[in-house]
Amino acid sequence: MTASADQEARQQRIEELLTAEVVASFARTPDPRLKQLLESLTRHLHAFIRDVRLTEEEWTRAIEFLTAAGHITDDRRQEFILLSDVLGASMQTIAVNNEVHLDATEATVFGPFFVEQSPLVGNGGDIAAGAPGTPCWVEGTVRDTGGNPVGGARIEVWEADEDGFYDVQYTDDRVSGRGHLFSEPDGTFAFWGVTPTPYPIPHDGPVGALLDAAHRSPMRAAHLHFMVSADNYRTLVTHVFVEGDPQLEIGDSVFGVKESLVKRFTGQPAGAPTPDGRALGDKPWARARFDIVLALRSA
Amino acid sequence: MTASADQEARQQRIEELLTAEVVASFARTPDPRLKQLLESLTRHLHAFIRDVRLTEEEWTRAIEFLTAAGHITDDRRQEFILLSDVLGASMQTIAVNNEVHLDATEATVFGPFFVEQSPLVGNGGDIAAGAPGTPCWVEGTVRDTGGNPVGGARIEVWEADEDGFYDVQYTDDRVSGRGHLFSEPDGTFAFWGVTPTPYPIPHDGPVGALLDAAHRSPMRAAHLHFMVSADNYRTLVTHVFVEGDPQLEIGDSVFGVKESLVKRFTGQPAGAPTPDGRALGDKPWARARFDIVLALRSA
Repeated sequence: MTASADQEARQQRIEELLTAEVVASFARTPDPRLKQLLESLTRHLHAFIRDVRLTEEEWTRAIEFLTAAGHITDDRRQEFILLSDVLGASMQTIAVNNEVHLDATEATVFGPFFVEQSPLVGNGGDIAAGAPGTPCWVEGTVRDTGGNPVGGARIEVWEADEDGFYDVQYTDDRVSGRGHLFSEPDGTFAFWGVTPTPYPIPHDGPVGALLDAAHRSPMRAAHLHFMVSADNYRTLVTHVFVEGDPQLEIGDSVFGVKESLVKRFTGQPAGAPTPDGRALGDKPWARARFDIVLALRSA
Repeated sequence: MTASADQEARQQRIEELLTAEVVASFARTPDPRLKQLLESLTRHLHAFIRDVRLTEEEWTRAIEFLTAAGHITDDRRQEFILLSDVLGASMQTIAVNNEVHLDATEATVFGPFFVEQSPLVGNGGDIAAGAPGTPCWVEGTVRDTGGNPVGGARIEVWEADEDGFYDVQYTDDRVSGRGHLFSEPDGTFAFWGVTPTPYPIPHDGPVGALLDAAHRSPMRAAHLHFMVSADNYRTLVTHVFVEGDPQLEIGDSVFGVKESLVKRFTGQPAGAPTPDGRALGDKPWARARFDIVLALRSA
């Protein structure tokens, strides 16, 4: 062995022993799941540092980044969630917790804008409640993976208005762009909302600076949120995306897009008759279909 | 392929594609090093989530942990550094940046208590400056890896007192337990300090709660900090540890210990003659030897 090969082997051994020592320090953790999490976190974190040969200056920058993220975070702003989102960690967590089951509808990120106790709008009702945007009729059927209709499923829907803001982002306590309804005994549902449009995640903090440095867009692809729950079924948290939205090509900043969730929103000229006879005056509108397949909770 | 094996394969593909999509999102990062760091971080972070099948509740707890760490961090408290320390990430960063070179002295963690412009005490001087503790004479020689003495090396030394506190942790602006000197032309150096004793890292925050949950000690093994610099040599940041310190067995909370850095501190009875004739009255004292080997900067 040459002197340099010998040094390399000694160096590798030092690094490996250090990782093993840290992993071993968690040996007495009473909660076996916490033990597993800390051991695995240690292994992956050390592997990262070793793989990139992290410099001490880069380590310092990372500490500064986390510190800045901590300081901008408060009751209304959660920079660590944004960080998890833009690194795809949120979406990967969704993926491992919502495993594929037959043809069940795919899940995607929950996001920070859901609100408990949304208004009950009922089937055919209007969740927009004055939110600016192009009116949009959304209809579909809730089924199980055996093809049987699921009646009485609670369907929560929420979305940003055409200016890119959810109601809770305004300071006037408005409630708009959100509501819930229940599927009919034959599984069908329908409601009015507004056609989704792309909007940016908050990008005036360290995560925004990171996206900038990576020449990445802070925009989310246009989407409408769904949370569908029914007894005995796995609760489905998902979005419907808008076919043709240019942001689908550019990339969704939080990696929420699944091809199976991209649906056609068909534009209708002003005056075209609406499905429920609603008069929209001189406004054009759109319609979309989103059929939902629920997985049994035990699946 | 069975239905369940098929679902497993689809699930695996979904998770792998997601990681690939996030990695690809960094493709346009102009700084090639930042690109490499973000791509590698993404791969390791996703591998962690997939390996442990992180639950959504665990993800939420992680976000809450980082938020709490951010909120306790200020100009005097750095919880993210503590977190890096107790996960061995700080020490692994030191390891990859101070690769083994022949018999050069091993490096260890820098810690948060170094202060620029420490007092010049000169060879044989007293860095304790009133810090409570058992007086300790430390002597050694600075050499290079070829065995040649290195004269004029700047030797910075700092340590906690026997109550476990560095001077900067007191509110009275005292300067004690720190100083610098230069090696003689023949490489020798010596100074008085106090015999190091174990002390805890700050553990009243989220990192302390994590150590508690893992049944880990917050104590650091007793140590004396050194930073040794000389023209053309790699700056050495290291500690000397105290042979026989029980904390060496229990484990150093930040994983700074290297066997080669553990030295004998030989106890001397009160009245035993001191190397420089200093009169210590009725106080026992100790002596230790720490020879230092510097690596060339280009090594």
